[in-house]
Amino acid sequence: MAELTHFDGAGHAHMVDVSDKAATARLAVASGCVRMTAETLAVIAEGRADKGDVLGVARLAGIMGAKRTADLIPLCHPLPVTKVAVDLVPDPDLPGVRITATVKTAGQTGVEMEALTAVSTAALTLYDMVKAIEKTMVIGEIRLELKEGGKSGRFEAPGSEA
Amino acid sequence: MAELTHFDGAGHAHMVDVSDKAATARLAVASGCVRMTAETLAVIAEGRADKGDVLGVARLAGIMGAKRTADLIPLCHPLPVTKVAVDLVPDPDLPGVRITATVKTAGQTGVEMEALTAVSTAALTLYDMVKAIEKTMVIGEIRLELKEGGKSGRFEAPGSEA
Amino acid sequence: MAELTHFDGAGHAHMVDVSDKAATARLAVASGCVRMTAETLAVIAEGRADKGDVLGVARLAGIMGAKRTADLIPLCHPLPVTKVAVDLVPDPDLPGVRITATVKTAGQTGVEMEALTAVSTAALTLYDMVKAIEKTMVIGEIRLELKEGGKSGRFEAPGSEA
Amino acid sequence: MAELTHFDGAGHAHMVDVSDKAATARLAVASGCVRMTAETLAVIAEGRADKGDVLGVARLAGIMGAKRTADLIPLCHPLPVTKVAVDLVPDPDLPGVRITATVKTAGQTGVEMEALTAVSTAALTLYDMVKAIEKTMVIGEIRLELKEGGKSGRFEAPGSEA
Amino acid sequence: MAELTHFDGAGHAHMVDVSDKAATARLAVASGCVRMTAETLAVIAEGRADKGDVLGVARLAGIMGAKRTADLIPLCHPLPVTKVAVDLVPDPDLPGVRITATVKTAGQTGVEMEALTAVSTAALTLYDMVKAIEKTMVIGEIRLELKEGGKSGRFEAPGSEA
Amino acid sequence: MAELTHFDGAGHAHMVDVSDKAATARLAVASGCVRMTAETLAVIAEGRADKGDVLGVARLAGIMGAKRTADLIPLCHPLPVTKVAVDLVPDPDLPGVRITATVKTAGQTGVEMEALTAVSTAALTLYDMVKAIEKTMVIGEIRLELKEGGKSGRFEAPGSEA
Repeated sequence: MAELTHFDGAGHAHMVDVSDKAATARLAVASGCVRMTAETLAVIAEGRADKGDVLGVARLAGIMGAKRTADLIPLCHPLPVTKVAVDLVPDPDLPGVRITATVKTAGQTGVEMEALTAVSTAALTLYDMVKAIEKTMVIGEIRLELKEGGKSGRFEAPGSEA
Repeated sequence: MAELTHFDGAGHAHMVDVSDKAATARLAVASGCVRMTAETLAVIAEGRADKGDVLGVARLAGIMGAKRTADLIPLCHPLPVTKVAVDLVPDPDLPGVRITATVKTAGQTGVEMEALTAVSTAALTLYDMVKAIEKTMVIGEIRLELKEGGKSGRFEAPGSEA
Repeated sequence: MAELTHFDGAGHAHMVDVSDKAATARLAVASGCVRMTAETLAVIAEGRADKGDVLGVARLAGIMGAKRTADLIPLCHPLPVTKVAVDLVPDPDLPGVRITATVKTAGQTGVEMEALTAVSTAALTLYDMVKAIEKTMVIGEIRLELKEGGKSGRFEAPGSEA
Repeated sequence: MAELTHFDGAGHAHMVDVSDKAATARLAVASGCVRMTAETLAVIAEGRADKGDVLGVARLAGIMGAKRTADLIPLCHPLPVTKVAVDLVPDPDLPGVRITATVKTAGQTGVEMEALTAVSTAALTLYDMVKAIEKTMVIGEIRLELKEGGKSGRFEAPGSEA
Repeated sequence: MAELTHFDGAGHAHMVDVSDKAATARLAVASGCVRMTAETLAVIAEGRADKGDVLGVARLAGIMGAKRTADLIPLCHPLPVTKVAVDLVPDPDLPGVRITATVKTAGQTGVEMEALTAVSTAALTLYDMVKAIEKTMVIGEIRLELKEGGKSGRFEAPGSEA
Repeated sequence: MAELTHFDGAGHAHMVDVSDKAATARLAVASGCVRMTAETLAVIAEGRADKGDVLGVARLAGIMGAKRTADLIPLCHPLPVTKVAVDLVPDPDLPGVRITATVKTAGQTGVEMEALTAVSTAALTLYDMVKAIEKTMVIGEIRLELKEGGKSGRFEAPGSEA
């Protein structure tokens, strides 16, 4: 059966030794969404124009969240990210907001967790700003879309358009 | 149309003034899940016994994440939480792991964001530990189940068993 | 000669004992500015419309900075702030941007440092975003405008309009 | 008109991609001051001898502040700094204290923000320790003096002696 | 057999619910030491006069460390401390430096961990500054000396003079 | 007499310039222990099986503590660690728990402080979880066992088995 690399032979958690891995260019793209009522989505869309930029605040929180990844995820290696972009797009079909984060670094491990943490933090921030008008919003479908660089090579989620 | 309280009349983001709100007992329960293949779930379940406590590490990360909420969410008030519990339960029907977080405080604002951040951080940590064997896991259905205390009163999500 | 309360009788730094001070409503207002060329100010003003909300990003950084005050200032007491607002207003007469921060809490010490840290962090963030087009910007005139609450009573800076 | 590099074509904030920039030796020097009455400056100067090292505490806070730059400034890249020095010199002509910070790294972006954050944090810390005897102190003239390394080359502020 | 309160009935770690405990005045005193050669101690003692205040830097780090306790200790409740003092005294009999930390708060849990973390951080900082001349220093005897406040009442370590 | 490198010629603390040092593979091993009664040790040992994994929680806190080293130790350089492992072994002969931390990086300075901080944080966390049943535990014998890499070469503590 497959092994969990974050535990040693005795089952003890550890931060995996990546000392001998090459520092290569790394890219990860993650996505997710926040589902809400059409009415709530309309408030966000309208607000953006002149009553408050919900998506702009969530975007910034997502970028900052990517930088806190190693603080939050116990066994995650600290990495100096070289690019973080977070997109939030209203989608009336959900209805809700779709979130995508792209992170790059040149390092010995990948930046999947940084991208996922960026999406997650942006989603939580959006929830925080809008919860006064709707508490039934749901954060979901947070997944890795794309990963490049490193020994394990390219990963692209089935059906991903990233 | 409903107002976004995190923005002032000019549409500028601010941390809402709660100075005049009473400090009352507050409770929030949030939930979410991480979906994966049955094979991956089996590794987690087996690992727990003697090869590494994935759920225990994720639980601890969730508890610590709750304490970092005001650092991560830009407009969130800092609050000294008085209780944090995070449960992670394997569910073969997903298949995957269901996560529930319960947070309490005595304060001027609620602890919904702390509970949601605990669930989110636990889910990200679980993903991190298991991603070497499955990258297609999906974090989802993160929602507020229950909220008590404060002027707005009790909220219970439709269909919630919390 | 006046005493420096942050040092004990032996000249050793300590965090002053405020255990016996009453928890009262506290307010502080601080201000500052970033001076730049008229051309740079025009880019910020134009950018706000559709090319990037420099003032919005700086505002958010200022709010978050207020929450990090006790982490940054060694002898500062941690305080759960109950309101933070940061205003940034372009002023062609400087030319530059004027920054004002208002912070509230109910606590045993004042929030002067939180307000000053908010102004300072907003100014640094503005500098960061605009430095590619002008490196000669100057951050200045950071001062306390107003302080209310606590035993020492109300302080208003000479000439302040806060 | 000049472009703000911290925003993409749609005006959305992002952390600029520096993945393809060379990691070169970087140096930045920033300066600033805290103005106060001659009486206050005398207390600081006297205190240093045996009643409390205000300048020593502010110096240390400045050094630590440099390490927190990427946490505070939303779009700033994290960088492992290789040198931080902060000087605080009483200047009776201000009257007040002049602050200079020097930061080095070998990286893909410059350390201007680290140097400016060091100066700013030292100034705030000095204010905190002395505010009990003078609340009218003013933090000012925070500017970049010198920048070396990277594609944009050497920058020296007009009139700088750094 | 005695129970570990930080685990629930199923053996899962949680942050204990202190919501119903009264907020009372709390005090804790902890101590520890760093042992070194007499030669190293002499460098620290001499350095203090004019070559660098090792004890002053360690003292400040200890105070700041107390404020980071809930960030470092997973199940520790966040608490707004109201006083932190750290003393470092050279003791030729060790030879080495004795460290004592005193922490106060008004809260629902005690501040033992804050006092112990202050001592520990001060000791680590001292080690860091002196390790270039002696790597064989030993940090030891970190213990709780005194605890007051709360339902469990006063605790004084056997033989403590605190 | 030996010099304290963390202070400049004027006795001012600074972060040492390591810009010109080569980035080489670095390793450090540190150790320490928590002494307690045999009864307390039995609770920890028993608890591990089914009532709560004290050692697992302390191990994780130690790993996370290593990543916070540069935040806690004022003059410590930030370093992206590439491996952290923390072992905690019950030792009936103390009686108590022996802690060992191993840290690696490829960098311009060593990771002694990261290893010592990991041991120290694990010890504090263990104390926190067990203090309800014994407050007289003592954290001690925290020392550097082994250091490899860098210009100063290999260091092995006298009598170390690391």
